[in-house]
Amino acid sequence: MKNTIKLITLVALISFVSCKQTDSKPAENITSEESNHPSLILTKQGVKEIRAQLGTVPLFDKSLEVTKAEVDAEIESGIQMPIPKDYSGGYTHERHKKNFIMLQKAGVLYQILDDEKYANYVKDMLMQYEEMYKTLPLHPKTRSYARGKLFWQCLNDANWLVYVSQAYDCIYNFLTEEERNKLETNLFKPFADHISVDSPQFYQRVHNHSTWGNAAVGMIGLVMNDQELIDRALYGIKGVNLDREAKDDDGGFLNKDGKAGFLANIEEPFSPDGYYNEGPYYQRYAMYPFLIFAEGLHNVKPELKIFEYKEGVLLKSINALLNLSDADGDFFPLNDGQKGMSYYNSALVTAVDISYYFGEQDPGLLTIAKEQDRVLLDDSGLAVALGVKNGKAKPFEKKSINLSDGPEGKQGGVGILRNEDIELVFKYAAQGSSHGHYDKLSFSLYEDGDEVMQDYGLARFVNIEQKGGGNYLKENKTWAKQTIAHNTITQNETSHFEGKYSIGSKNHSDLLFFDSKNPEIQIASAKETNAYPGTEMQRTFAVIKDENFEKPFVVDIISVTSKAKNQYDLPYYYMGQVLQANFKYESPSVLKTLGKNNGYQHLWEEGIGQSNSDNVKFSWLNKNKFYTLTTVSSAKDDLIFARIGANDPEFNLRRDATFIVRRKNTQNTIFASVIESHGSYSFVSELAVNSKSNIANLKVIHSDENYIAISIEDLKGTTKILILSNNDSSNNKEHKLEINKKTYQWIGHYNYTNY
Amino acid sequence: MKNTIKLITLVALISFVSCKQTDSKPAENITSEESNHPSLILTKQGVKEIRAQLGTVPLFDKSLEVTKAEVDAEIESGIQMPIPKDYSGGYTHERHKKNFIMLQKAGVLYQILDDEKYANYVKDMLMQYEEMYKTLPLHPKTRSYARGKLFWQCLNDANWLVYVSQAYDCIYNFLTEEERNKLETNLFKPFADHISVDSPQFYQRVHNHSTWGNAAVGMIGLVMNDQELIDRALYGIKGVNLDREAKDDDGGFLNKDGKAGFLANIEEPFSPDGYYNEGPYYQRYAMYPFLIFAEGLHNVKPELKIFEYKEGVLLKSINALLNLSDADGDFFPLNDGQKGMSYYNSALVTAVDISYYFGEQDPGLLTIAKEQDRVLLDDSGLAVALGVKNGKAKPFEKKSINLSDGPEGKQGGVGILRNEDIELVFKYAAQGSSHGHYDKLSFSLYEDGDEVMQDYGLARFVNIEQKGGGNYLKENKTWAKQTIAHNTITQNETSHFEGKYSIGSKNHSDLLFFDSKNPEIQIASAKETNAYPGTEMQRTFAVIKDENFEKPFVVDIISVTSKAKNQYDLPYYYMGQVLQANFKYESPSVLKTLGKNNGYQHLWEEGIGQSNSDNVKFSWLNKNKFYTLTTVSSAKDDLIFARIGANDPEFNLRRDATFIVRRKNTQNTIFASVIESHGSYSFVSELAVNSKSNIANLKVIHSDENYIAISIEDLKGTTKILILSNNDSSNNKEHKLEINKKTYQWIGHYNYTNY
Repeated sequence: MKNTIKLITLVALISFVSCKQTDSKPAENITSEESNHPSLILTKQGVKEIRAQLGTVPLFDKSLEVTKAEVDAEIESGIQMPIPKDYSGGYTHERHKKNFIMLQKAGVLYQILDDEKYANYVKDMLMQYEEMYKTLPLHPKTRSYARGKLFWQCLNDANWLVYVSQAYDCIYNFLTEEERNKLETNLFKPFADHISVDSPQFYQRVHNHSTWGNAAVGMIGLVMNDQELIDRALYGIKGVNLDREAKDDDGGFLNKDGKAGFLANIEEPFSPDGYYNEGPYYQRYAMYPFLIFAEGLHNVKPELKIFEYKEGVLLKSINALLNLSDADGDFFPLNDGQKGMSYYNSALVTAVDISYYFGEQDPGLLTIAKEQDRVLLDDSGLAVALGVKNGKAKPFEKKSINLSDGPEGKQGGVGILRNEDIELVFKYAAQGSSHGHYDKLSFSLYEDGDEVMQDYGLARFVNIEQKGGGNYLKENKTWAKQTIAHNTITQNETSHFEGKYSIGSKNHSDLLFFDSKNPEIQIASAKETNAYPGTEMQRTFAVIKDENFEKPFVVDIISVTSKAKNQYDLPYYYMGQVLQANFKYESPSVLKTLGKNNGYQHLWEEGIGQSNSDNVKFSWLNKNKFYTLTTVSSAKDDLIFARIGANDPEFNLRRDATFIVRRKNTQNTIFASVIESHGSYSFVSELAVNSKSNIANLKVIHSDENYIAISIEDLKGTTKILILSNNDSSNNKEHKLEINKKTYQWIGHYNYTNY
Repeated sequence: MKNTIKLITLVALISFVSCKQTDSKPAENITSEESNHPSLILTKQGVKEIRAQLGTVPLFDKSLEVTKAEVDAEIESGIQMPIPKDYSGGYTHERHKKNFIMLQKAGVLYQILDDEKYANYVKDMLMQYEEMYKTLPLHPKTRSYARGKLFWQCLNDANWLVYVSQAYDCIYNFLTEEERNKLETNLFKPFADHISVDSPQFYQRVHNHSTWGNAAVGMIGLVMNDQELIDRALYGIKGVNLDREAKDDDGGFLNKDGKAGFLANIEEPFSPDGYYNEGPYYQRYAMYPFLIFAEGLHNVKPELKIFEYKEGVLLKSINALLNLSDADGDFFPLNDGQKGMSYYNSALVTAVDISYYFGEQDPGLLTIAKEQDRVLLDDSGLAVALGVKNGKAKPFEKKSINLSDGPEGKQGGVGILRNEDIELVFKYAAQGSSHGHYDKLSFSLYEDGDEVMQDYGLARFVNIEQKGGGNYLKENKTWAKQTIAHNTITQNETSHFEGKYSIGSKNHSDLLFFDSKNPEIQIASAKETNAYPGTEMQRTFAVIKDENFEKPFVVDIISVTSKAKNQYDLPYYYMGQVLQANFKYESPSVLKTLGKNNGYQHLWEEGIGQSNSDNVKFSWLNKNKFYTLTTVSSAKDDLIFARIGANDPEFNLRRDATFIVRRKNTQNTIFASVIESHGSYSFVSELAVNSKSNIANLKVIHSDENYIAISIEDLKGTTKILILSNNDSSNNKEHKLEINKKTYQWIGHYNYTNY
């Protein structure tokens, strides 16, 4: 009811302000230059249609109302233009960030509501920026490899220009030619130059930072109709080649192979499936400049056919990104990803709306748009809001999906196995640029949006100034990137590729097979042969729905073969509280670290023991559900309880737990495990249901060069076996194998059958 | 839509089965004895009204439908009657527990739906119990101080009889006299005797266990019309007096002063305000037998006027209990309380419905009933469902409330200070029977239902067999009950009353004042003089809404005076991750425990340092909100970061953190602190708002026998002072005090004003 009244007011307001539409500048005075604006994101035709629909499309009207309230409050409180001095999280940083967001929004409001209040606000603020920028030195904070002027790093300056270009486009016609000249000459052009020609180490790369730079330069170029800037955006700075061995703050190569510009930035980091090499967290961050500049190019330079570039990879990438989220819409925190980032982020509003409008009007996207509860205030947002209004939304169904990595899709990938509420993320990708972690063949596990086995994510509190200025903390390198911080094998307490980017960035794992045809058995297998020279690792995950089990269970089989004897550590970063372990262990009376380097210095050893049976069973309780890990083991294995937090004087790390299977002095071996989710506990009824594992026995019953087979006996006495073909990436080859005098025949990668 | 169809089916079904109403027993054969049934919880008149309303009262119909589906499924799967052998969490325990719940529900369904299927189910199962019980020895598990026969402890046997009495009442008329004689002679009477005359150590006490026993004996007595059993329920076993020095499993006295029976159990543990001495978790548990037996007594023996007993304390206690919950309805885990227990528990459905029906039809209760989404299938449930249907529900508003403890309200109490989203629970109560913790003047803090400063609660996983059979873990005594586990002062590393129940149970703290008149300032003050002989402690909490602060902040002032020099440890069990501390501290490279006994052996020392300014500031992030503790300190104080989990080989304890202010070698002192909640962080927008404390300086500016005054200077430079009257429990006395040559005059307990 309240909303309806507000809308009526809004519509009334629109009608009212419409009367004085061209007060300041009669239509006949509009030049041909001006006739093209707005053209970047909003278009003249689009604005006409939006105005015609105002007050009739709830999701659009609501988004408009929220924006209007926000901008009105800012206008009310007046423009703040502090001299830049802070890191992110600090006042001047956050203020200028808010300024550019408000400029973009106010520009849009001016177009849609046709109220000069907004145009004047944009104009006034731009003039103040012009006044300040003219004399602005480099930002005083020196930590960045490419310092900005408004912000401590060029990256944020580029953010500013991406948004402000849109604002400028919206009020282009509102300004006199003289005013435009002033802004372009003293503000926009030098601004674009600073983040490009003056900062090639930032601009002239294939990197998410550069994508922002390219988009910034290109978008202001499109508004100013400056072909040189547009070309610089698309193809990079002419004639500039960087030192190919130089590195950036994050340890990544500045420009390994000399590529640069927006098109190269589409070409390189996206696989043909739309997977972005740094992972979903950074894809989300990069998504906005990719898409908003693409939308601008589509509108101003339709002949470029940007949305068809590389077989439509930009739109494909949106689908990939949405699939890289859990049941709650939170992105899997692969590589440097901050947990909690989700498709509710505004960049994903852009992505969903653009994907719907410029793609194939997938009705599943409308469901996500409804959850996001807002749309872009442009043609695409209107289309989405209309789709929702007209009841076209259908559920966005996430199924198992395999996403190749690498520009040509040949550098491993990420496989997501989904079966009922269980989601398993299997990472066998390439390094992931400077934000990559040394975690070949790692995995994380989710149930209904909750973490069961976590990927730690990054060690950073983005934009929280108290924590290292909101930037990467040193524990990101000493802990979060290290192999032992992940659910995969660490050999001899050293990280994959010795933890060296120069080696890691040259290598990737390889998929053996990914098979989701049988809805009961979702399975994938991949190999890693470079992480530890001389050692080959193959890991297979299956998520199996079996009628004798309450829920789908996870099979995890790792086969390691090596030229030498090694120590293999396999951690499981379970979430929750330990319930029971079926083995004896010692609890130290003083806590010491598990090791000295490579992340081990951050782990406290809370217990160590050995198994006295063939199966180690370890169970825990998390978020009202019971879990059990069953793993084939022997008395030779060390079974270690550890906890993150050692050598962490600033409390930068979470005190989360892990359970590590350590196999010492071993050359070739198989780690075979099953993870079950079972039953439930209610803290309200205090009823524990199905609180125990359903597995009586787990065995490796066969292993040779070509096949591995395990048997799973359940409590009812039924035994199933899973046979894997180690060397068969086709899915129609016939196989035959004798195990314990029984012959098994099957076609394809695997056989799950009665023993 | 689906529900509607189901309801129509249900109503049709009712009409159908109604036709064969008295198939097995013609009405004319009903004896006068029979004419009285059902009479215990359901009544003949009530059943008539319920049947008349079926299908027209949504909340009631829905509750009925859920119950029917549940019982039908059980009938379908057949009766299971295992020979008792397990502890709670095990199969036989959980099965017999489910049986009695099903019996009660099936009995009710028989009455409401008039379908003999349910009566036969109850009859068959009761006959099987009769058959088994005749020959049943004591339960084989020996851990309990009072073993049952169906269950390992009499308590659970009593649970069984409370439920089964209701079932028996429902099918009383369905059975032949011969069948009833068989059941009463071989099952009910010996069952009631076993849990009472044969187990006086269980039955003959003032304790929640005994309340269940009394209700069980009384309810079956009411159904059987056995005056001896009814008297035994109300007044205890005639002529039995227990050893007054004997103790139970939990360390509580079996029967300190010889009182027993249901009425004594109302008399003793409830204060006149309705506070139950063991705290809300156990009140919730005891609530069901109190209320269901009371309802039975009201129906069968109205002349007892049980709901008016002790000035209507039973109904008052429901209001107290609801007020002892946070914004989400979770009970504050005072004493031995398992977190997560809430007013969604079925005992609270009983409580809310009975309170509404037998009390004053508080429309706030209807809102809770709506949240609970179910009602009792009896007269009271029908009344609530009708109230909801008729739109009478209003919000249940929780305000600051003071609840006295002790039979006469003279043994301290619990004060809850509420101000906007902040809730502070101040415990200055008596020992709390055998479930009490040694935590005089402790507190816990909540914001919008989330813990800010936690009360640890108990060390137990109720009904989770893997954890010590679901029973109390030894860490409950070595950790959870100890003083250092709470947000209050530990002197010389020993718990209050030396951690001895025999001393603790004789003492209580005393309220000085509780003042919630001014909505901006909610304040309470209490004293403890017995916890440490020779030492007096006074603690005052205020939750103040000041226009210069974003949210209400908490003032915490503790004044300690002692005859000797001591070490005082004041821990704050903050929830969340450390952001920043303004003092230097050492981080040990090896973790050692903070001490050897009294709970200290369970704390790892993660850091220790000293302040180099007058104010220690410590900030943390929790659930997207920022918090800062500011406390007046000096370089003499040790500032300790510690974490729970040492000497915990079974991982029974949560690895939660604490920050401890340690003041050594000190006789008299004041701990003055402010806790602020401020700002927010979003993991989606990555925006940090108002992430810093608003306090520039905190000082103790005056302290003598009569007054303590602190000053709080905020970042804008405004300084307020809070003056407390240490010895004034009236609220209209005039005070006058000169501080720094300025005279302050006020009336009442405190003065909050400009400096």
